[in-house]
Amino acid sequence: MIPSSPAATAATGRVAGHPVDPLFLNRWSPRAFDGAPMPRAHLLTILEAARWAPSAFNIQPWRFVHAHRDDPAWDTFVGLLDPFNGGWAHRAAALVVVLSDTLVSGDGTRPDRPSSTHAFDAGAAWAQMALQATALGYQAHAMAGIERDAIRAALGVPERFHIPIAVALGRAADPVVLPETLRAREVPSDRLPLDAIAFAGAFPAAGA
Amino acid sequence: MIPSSPAATAATGRVAGHPVDPLFLNRWSPRAFDGAPMPRAHLLTILEAARWAPSAFNIQPWRFVHAHRDDPAWDTFVGLLDPFNGGWAHRAAALVVVLSDTLVSGDGTRPDRPSSTHAFDAGAAWAQMALQATALGYQAHAMAGIERDAIRAALGVPERFHIPIAVALGRAADPVVLPETLRAREVPSDRLPLDAIAFAGAFPAAGA
Repeated sequence: MIPSSPAATAATGRVAGHPVDPLFLNRWSPRAFDGAPMPRAHLLTILEAARWAPSAFNIQPWRFVHAHRDDPAWDTFVGLLDPFNGGWAHRAAALVVVLSDTLVSGDGTRPDRPSSTHAFDAGAAWAQMALQATALGYQAHAMAGIERDAIRAALGVPERFHIPIAVALGRAADPVVLPETLRAREVPSDRLPLDAIAFAGAFPAAGA
Repeated sequence: MIPSSPAATAATGRVAGHPVDPLFLNRWSPRAFDGAPMPRAHLLTILEAARWAPSAFNIQPWRFVHAHRDDPAWDTFVGLLDPFNGGWAHRAAALVVVLSDTLVSGDGTRPDRPSSTHAFDAGAAWAQMALQATALGYQAHAMAGIERDAIRAALGVPERFHIPIAVALGRAADPVVLPETLRAREVPSDRLPLDAIAFAGAFPAAGA
C-alpha cells in the first residue's frame, strides 16, 4: 500500500522521507504577504479548526483575539508586535493573538489550580489553525516576538492567561515586497532528519 | 465560495460551525483499539508529519521514543503509563513518548539557555502527528497520565527533556473491548462554542 522508501515533494520544494499529507509540507511561514483582506468567513474557519484541537481532559485552554486589516483595531494590533515583526506583518490579512489559560477552573467545591498542559495544548490549537489556513490557500506565521505587556493592556487580557504567540495570516506574496535583508530568508525551512528526532525503544545514549 | 452559515458533519457525529477540513472533525481520542499491529511505514509517516511542525526559530524541540506492539520493548512501554491508561492502551498498535527540549543549545560562543516555547512547539508537533494518524485511518490518544520518573529511567531520557505526554496509536475498535465503566465515555468530545474562545478586537470584559 505504502511504497517502501517514498518521497513526497511539495509546492514548497520540501521533500518528505515518508508520504505525509501534502498539507504538512505546504504549510510554511512566509513574511511576504499580499496586503489584501481576507473574507471574515475564512478567519472563522481557521479559528474553527483550532477549536477542534485535542487538549488534556478537553479543557481547551486556548483563546484567540483577532483583527482584520480593515478593522479599526488593525493599527493597534500591528503595534503590539515587536518592531521587526511589525515591519512585515502589517501586510497580513489578519492578526490573531493566541492565549493559553494557566489555570484550570474549579467547580465550586475545588479552587482554580495551575495547569501543567496549557502551553502544550495551545500549541496543538495553533498547528490546527496553521494547517486550516494552508488548506484555504493562506499561510500562517507565528511570532514569539510580541509586546506582551502592551498586549495585556490594550486587549484586556486577564492575568491568568499566558500570551505565547501572535499569528499573521494572509496570502503569500512575491518576496519583492520585503526589505532586501529579508528576501533571502523567504524560503520554506528544512527540518532535522527523522532519525535525529525519533528513536525506537529508547533515547540514544550520549555519544552514541 | 464559502456558504455564509455552513455546517460540516463528520463521521464522528461532530458538527462544525464553519467548513473546516474534515480531518479536524474526524480526529478524536478513542480508548478502544483493535489490538492489531501497524505497518512500520505508517508510524514513520505519522512521525514525519510531526517532524514538519512549525517551531520558534525552527528549533524543533520535539523528540519521540516509540514502540510497536510486537516489539520486545512493548510491555515496558505499557508499564510506563499510569494504571488507568495502561488498562486500555495495551490494545494500541504503537506507543510514542513525546519529549520536549527545555534548553536551546548554545553554539560554542553562547551557552545553552532555557527555552520558553518548547512545550508550545511540541504541542504543535503532537497535533500534526494526530492528524496524520487520522489521515491514515488510525486515531491517536494523548495521555498525560504517565510515569515520568520511570520513563526517564527506562528510556534513558536526559534531564534536559520534559515529558509532556505519551500517545497511543491504533485503529479504533468497538467499545465492547473496554471495561463497562469506560464504554459510555467512548464518544468524540464536543467543544466550547467558538464565540466563547475567539474574540474580535479585545478580550471580553469580566461579566460582559
